[in-house]
Amino acid sequence: MVRQDPPAFLDAVRWDERGLVPAIAQDARTGQVLMMAWMNREALAATVAEGIAVYWSRSRRRLWRKGESSGHTQQVREVRLDCDGDTVLLSVEQHGGIACHTGRTRCFFQRLDDGGWVIDEPVVRAPETIYGAGNGHE
Amino acid sequence: MVRQDPPAFLDAVRWDERGLVPAIAQDARTGQVLMMAWMNREALAATVAEGIAVYWSRSRRRLWRKGESSGHTQQVREVRLDCDGDTVLLSVEQHGGIACHTGRTRCFFQRLDDGGWVIDEPVVRAPETIYGAGNGHE
Repeated sequence: MVRQDPPAFLDAVRWDERGLVPAIAQDARTGQVLMMAWMNREALAATVAEGIAVYWSRSRRRLWRKGESSGHTQQVREVRLDCDGDTVLLSVEQHGGIACHTGRTRCFFQRLDDGGWVIDEPVVRAPETIYGAGNGHE
Repeated sequence: MVRQDPPAFLDAVRWDERGLVPAIAQDARTGQVLMMAWMNREALAATVAEGIAVYWSRSRRRLWRKGESSGHTQQVREVRLDCDGDTVLLSVEQHGGIACHTGRTRCFFQRLDDGGWVIDEPVVRAPETIYGAGNGHE
């Protein structure tokens, strides 16, 4: 087995004290900001190598290939880094048009209105039909 | 002096262990993701009360009215919250068309290309003419 050096672009990223960076996913077609999740070095390396968004699940402490149980994968068109290297921006094609585990197009479906959060975006597909019974999140 | 209760919408936000949430600023007109910064309760309350983006500067440990030294304020058109309440999305009108302290339209000016980060967006205005000499960041 040949040992491969990790890609050098990972060193330019300013990983936080947990070894993570926030990664924003933006829809390549509509421009909508779909979601924000976290990546560690391995997740970003896998995202680039595989061409689909791979995040680090902080709750489950493992790599999370977005869409692994829902089928709602994110094809990555572009990966960007900000000026101080501590935030990643992905431009993605969202498979199925649903990024959120609630069955909505995106996770930002609550809008501040007159001092309260109002849900103003519809459920496109019921989560039960996405994940099967008893599994609310992938 | 009348003591005012803090706005209730702040309680719906899932502040992290440092009392912060990431806040993404998106250009209301172009849809470009401009930058990502952090907010504490006070910053989000001030953003909503004043209608301009107010962040929490982790390095300077104080509220940071975006544009306070550059003049590049962000007029907030919409505030959104994600499904699990731990990320804020602002829709903003970027004054001067420059969000980044490097003098570029936005902070995400580096694109991953063939294993390396490439700067592919121009400096709109030289930082020296924005901040004066010796001050590279607001």
